[in-house]
Amino acid sequence: MSKKIRLGILGGGGDSLIGILHRVASFINDNYQIVGAVFNPDFETSVNFAKKIDIPTSRIYKDFDTLIEEELKLPKEERIQVCSVLTPNFLHFPMAKKLLENGFNVICEKPMTTTYEEAKILQATLEKAGTVFAVTHTYTGYPMVRQMREMIKAGAIGNIQKVDAQYYQGWINPIIHEKDKRSSTWRLDPEKSGISCCMGDIGVHAFNMIEYTTGMQIKSLLADLNYLYDDNKMDIDGTALVRFNTNAKGVIRTSQIATGEENGLVIKVYGNKGGLKWEQENPNYLYVLSEDKPLQVYKPGHAYNSDLSLDGTKLPPGHPEGIFDAMANIYLGVSRAIRGEKYNDGEFPTMLDGVRSLNFIESSVASHNQGNIWVDLD
Amino acid sequence: MSKKIRLGILGGGGDSLIGILHRVASFINDNYQIVGAVFNPDFETSVNFAKKIDIPTSRIYKDFDTLIEEELKLPKEERIQVCSVLTPNFLHFPMAKKLLENGFNVICEKPMTTTYEEAKILQATLEKAGTVFAVTHTYTGYPMVRQMREMIKAGAIGNIQKVDAQYYQGWINPIIHEKDKRSSTWRLDPEKSGISCCMGDIGVHAFNMIEYTTGMQIKSLLADLNYLYDDNKMDIDGTALVRFNTNAKGVIRTSQIATGEENGLVIKVYGNKGGLKWEQENPNYLYVLSEDKPLQVYKPGHAYNSDLSLDGTKLPPGHPEGIFDAMANIYLGVSRAIRGEKYNDGEFPTMLDGVRSLNFIESSVASHNQGNIWVDLD
Amino acid sequence: MSKKIRLGILGGGGDSLIGILHRVASFINDNYQIVGAVFNPDFETSVNFAKKIDIPTSRIYKDFDTLIEEELKLPKEERIQVCSVLTPNFLHFPMAKKLLENGFNVICEKPMTTTYEEAKILQATLEKAGTVFAVTHTYTGYPMVRQMREMIKAGAIGNIQKVDAQYYQGWINPIIHEKDKRSSTWRLDPEKSGISCCMGDIGVHAFNMIEYTTGMQIKSLLADLNYLYDDNKMDIDGTALVRFNTNAKGVIRTSQIATGEENGLVIKVYGNKGGLKWEQENPNYLYVLSEDKPLQVYKPGHAYNSDLSLDGTKLPPGHPEGIFDAMANIYLGVSRAIRGEKYNDGEFPTMLDGVRSLNFIESSVASHNQGNIWVDLD
Amino acid sequence: MSKKIRLGILGGGGDSLIGILHRVASFINDNYQIVGAVFNPDFETSVNFAKKIDIPTSRIYKDFDTLIEEELKLPKEERIQVCSVLTPNFLHFPMAKKLLENGFNVICEKPMTTTYEEAKILQATLEKAGTVFAVTHTYTGYPMVRQMREMIKAGAIGNIQKVDAQYYQGWINPIIHEKDKRSSTWRLDPEKSGISCCMGDIGVHAFNMIEYTTGMQIKSLLADLNYLYDDNKMDIDGTALVRFNTNAKGVIRTSQIATGEENGLVIKVYGNKGGLKWEQENPNYLYVLSEDKPLQVYKPGHAYNSDLSLDGTKLPPGHPEGIFDAMANIYLGVSRAIRGEKYNDGEFPTMLDGVRSLNFIESSVASHNQGNIWVDLD
Repeated sequence: MSKKIRLGILGGGGDSLIGILHRVASFINDNYQIVGAVFNPDFETSVNFAKKIDIPTSRIYKDFDTLIEEELKLPKEERIQVCSVLTPNFLHFPMAKKLLENGFNVICEKPMTTTYEEAKILQATLEKAGTVFAVTHTYTGYPMVRQMREMIKAGAIGNIQKVDAQYYQGWINPIIHEKDKRSSTWRLDPEKSGISCCMGDIGVHAFNMIEYTTGMQIKSLLADLNYLYDDNKMDIDGTALVRFNTNAKGVIRTSQIATGEENGLVIKVYGNKGGLKWEQENPNYLYVLSEDKPLQVYKPGHAYNSDLSLDGTKLPPGHPEGIFDAMANIYLGVSRAIRGEKYNDGEFPTMLDGVRSLNFIESSVASHNQGNIWVDLD
Repeated sequence: MSKKIRLGILGGGGDSLIGILHRVASFINDNYQIVGAVFNPDFETSVNFAKKIDIPTSRIYKDFDTLIEEELKLPKEERIQVCSVLTPNFLHFPMAKKLLENGFNVICEKPMTTTYEEAKILQATLEKAGTVFAVTHTYTGYPMVRQMREMIKAGAIGNIQKVDAQYYQGWINPIIHEKDKRSSTWRLDPEKSGISCCMGDIGVHAFNMIEYTTGMQIKSLLADLNYLYDDNKMDIDGTALVRFNTNAKGVIRTSQIATGEENGLVIKVYGNKGGLKWEQENPNYLYVLSEDKPLQVYKPGHAYNSDLSLDGTKLPPGHPEGIFDAMANIYLGVSRAIRGEKYNDGEFPTMLDGVRSLNFIESSVASHNQGNIWVDLD
Repeated sequence: MSKKIRLGILGGGGDSLIGILHRVASFINDNYQIVGAVFNPDFETSVNFAKKIDIPTSRIYKDFDTLIEEELKLPKEERIQVCSVLTPNFLHFPMAKKLLENGFNVICEKPMTTTYEEAKILQATLEKAGTVFAVTHTYTGYPMVRQMREMIKAGAIGNIQKVDAQYYQGWINPIIHEKDKRSSTWRLDPEKSGISCCMGDIGVHAFNMIEYTTGMQIKSLLADLNYLYDDNKMDIDGTALVRFNTNAKGVIRTSQIATGEENGLVIKVYGNKGGLKWEQENPNYLYVLSEDKPLQVYKPGHAYNSDLSLDGTKLPPGHPEGIFDAMANIYLGVSRAIRGEKYNDGEFPTMLDGVRSLNFIESSVASHNQGNIWVDLD
Repeated sequence: MSKKIRLGILGGGGDSLIGILHRVASFINDNYQIVGAVFNPDFETSVNFAKKIDIPTSRIYKDFDTLIEEELKLPKEERIQVCSVLTPNFLHFPMAKKLLENGFNVICEKPMTTTYEEAKILQATLEKAGTVFAVTHTYTGYPMVRQMREMIKAGAIGNIQKVDAQYYQGWINPIIHEKDKRSSTWRLDPEKSGISCCMGDIGVHAFNMIEYTTGMQIKSLLADLNYLYDDNKMDIDGTALVRFNTNAKGVIRTSQIATGEENGLVIKVYGNKGGLKWEQENPNYLYVLSEDKPLQVYKPGHAYNSDLSLDGTKLPPGHPEGIFDAMANIYLGVSRAIRGEKYNDGEFPTMLDGVRSLNFIESSVASHNQGNIWVDLD
């Protein structure tokens, strides 16, 4: 009997980029096999896709409810162990909830839910279920992000006094200036993607990156969002001033109209002993600043890195790994949790990350709508 | 008779860095000679410094008022034509004012004054005087900053929709955490340096860079500053959300506690057709982004650059020029203005830049002190 | 029945880095499944490894000959279709040869053989066999290397006049200075790794990169190698001057004692119309130089790239892919060839690359040993 | 009486780039004044240029011989102390020789002479004269080049085992492919520029950079040059294999047909304890590599730098200085030598650098012409 974890997939069929990302990530460490799926709302499309990627079609189900129903009939040692939820945003919550209620482990794409209220319900559901739950803030799987987290935890930069996170993209620029396009893009439709576009889609990664790397929680924020056109109510750009429980302050900068930017997630954290910088587009470099010593550039795979970082690197220094490998690291952590093996805090983002993310999104929009006032996070 | 412009220097003696910067800048284009000075409040020190740098001591004066008095006795063709004001901040205003009132041209270090009110008085004084006045926002002298301005003016990136300026330094970190030091540093003493430390010293450069390159004016701002310690009332870190007369928004980020940062001035401007990025520490690179074409990297001295940019480059591509050359470009523009030669808008920062800078500083502090509210600039 | 290609693996068990690289590469595009293997000379170790990575143990064989024998007994539609040869260098030739003679397709690690003579024999064997053969010069699978090749082919830089390839590593530095270590490292033992260490292991990649990207063949070379210690006869550093059939000249620079270098493969090609540069450690950037225009930086996934390049990118711009993805691209090309689908020249390195590589290695050593004379390649 | 050193200038009038570079360099540290000159072979042009840059015309001479004659009539305390020789290459030798013979100090542009024989004669002349002589290998004046030298001297990278220097430009590309142009460019005329174009003009900088930074001497070399066209006998591209007195080897790579390259001088030195890299186009970064520690990036002005490096930096870290400042550092060192003040080895390139440079140029051409054989340097 295979020792691979039995993985189910919801959504992510066809050319879905998120589908490819999760599928490859699950393969990379030899520890998952896809045994069931609803790749697409249309059953035939779903079956054909399974054939195309050469997965047995016997457990391709016509819809999500059928998947749950049929899988529960199987003996536990054959049943899907964990389901990856890659469907459109508004389906994350009902699917994740039902999965948890039926004892499945869940890997959920972000945003975990479309509202903070749903997020708290899901949190309560998980507490009862006691299964494993991960939300895929993929970027936390990069070895140098993990190294940043561990260095901060170990005091390498001392007490944090300034945090600056950026997530700049330009992809919505060719859409936003044409009324037809901006009215018909699902990302700009609150029904489909929740109350925020920019903060909800990418600001939330910047937020999560701050809390993941620093280990601190953002206490309050003041946000100013931008729409460009009055007939579009969804933010496509915005900046949030943030404060922590300490005397540190910071800023989260996001944009989808930073024309020409690709996927510009950047985080900088400064403490009284030094600073750290990391850029997603060049993920294998971590810049370590200090006052009186030369800049240091950390790279993956070297013995000087922390265990958490080294666990995420497969090849020797100088062999660039990328975003598939980052996601694979998250899948690896989840596999350990599912198997009851020892794993470390930080190997995958958890329900708490998901809950706080929704708290962040709603607080940002609330701050903006009320005239750029300070809003406390819970 | 020498055709060089007769330059007077106020302050900048000894090891003063700003002294070296201005002196070298005045030499670089063969068009200034230092003919008079008060390098130091102590006359003997001043004379000795003149001897050290080999300037005739006959017109080294015991104080500023004497300089004015004695120079006015000289025939016009021998008299100092322009005075560089490099004294501590609080002396900029009275010196610049008296110089203007007595018909001298003025090159004034920033901040031009310590209050917005003084700035407006100086502006009125200049209007009466009709002489040449420059405030040394040095960074505007870099060829690639000039290129950025000219490209935006020519519509290269279309309508601006997002602006982001950063000025991060770490130098105050070793001072701020010790009570003795933070109480005795002049930069943190409002009597000596005005009501703001971080916004006043460096935020103002970021502000000026935005207005210089974009040609737009910031209409309103909302700032959150940081002090770290309650016994220190001067900001050492802060972020300002900014809005323009258009639907563009932006952010100005500044810090003197970004530990390990040296002189991290960065500006990014995004329009609907493309984006531009420039970093002071690598001043000879201008990054030109567009949606569907490869990133372009402009460098100084190439024929593809604008006239304003090429005017600021002395050597062929690949021969790095630096900050002395940037300041020299400003001195070159001023020399043309003094001589009544043709020069272009953008060759040196003017009184208007100085006035708006003080408007910015006071607005930032006001916004913060009133609870992070929006404050309009004039 | 599965449509995945049935893959056999020879070597690459345990923590073998090359094993991980090939295994992951085979997974990434959903088109291979491992059905048989001899991971290790020790049968039990081999079986245990199969269990560990969760591959059915029924077709884990006690040795290579048994694998051939037993697989041939299986019906063609169950039999291994292609074998990846990841064993120590001296086994590549006999294994690849026997595989070809028995009608298998082969993916062979480099160096393809340990001598040029063997290479030519293998070439003849392949001609008879008529199966698919690839040698894994992994770096040719990077999208920007493919883009470089296609741009040169399309004349983007005109006639090539200068080529410069570098491959610098430092890993042998801590070994070479201690007699014990340098006597016991297999890479420095000609019996195990062939007549050359540095040229054979990495110089050959630089050589192949030149011929792959430029489409030109190196006609002759003059090499100077370095050993550092007289009791070590294997080169650990060396430079080769090269000439082409045209009037272009070039240089190949290699070192394993470039202390601190990780995996520094770099290629620069200059033509009369422009230049191209690429660095393996930052593989997602291709620098396009021209005389009178700004430097351009090409990145993967953009529509401006060639079909061959775009075929190798799975995610949108700004999502870094790495070396696993490069190798996966090679596996993808091989899969198309095996299935008889259309594929393009350049999708994977072929027998010819392998033959020329051995020709290069032996010529380099010959040139050095004969006093740094010019040696013609065939 | 002025304490500034009395400087004479030969050549460098009009828009001469080398003229600007030397003039500005002489101004930067307040320690030279131009008192005499022959800027141009045409007397009137020379006088007009003096007027333009506002230098008293009384000591602008009609030719070099007159300059010598007239200056010698002046009392020693008024006479030119040092002459900068910026004339076409073939005039360097006769002018420098006569200057030395008449007791002047000399700052000579490179190449110091057009033949090795002349270089040795000049060396003998200097020995008799006992004055100060500098040859302006400008790049040695950069603070991070000086830091590299001092770190190597202090053993930071241990015993050197590999050296790699590059100097790539593309400027001759638009000339070389047209017969008219390549026949009429003075650089390609051996009468005017000596026996080598590429090696003589830029290869020599790469050579000097190696000897300057490593403190080692190149013992022998083997060069392969390129001309592209048979009707042009001057090299425009070439590579030299080099050997040292130790077991270290290296390579010097030069090109003027590396299309799109601007001024790409790069040096990399690897020892058994670490490596160092520096690039002229980004001169304020020194990369320090070691096996088991993160890459370090040294920048100018920090206390961790050597005295020799810090002596060459005027402003705090983060304020980029450039090539004028590098040349100014050389002028500063020369001024100390002239004044009999203490100065350090390494502050300016000396006669020995000049002699070895010519030895290098002639050896390169000899090696190539004799069929790429090893040629020993003296």
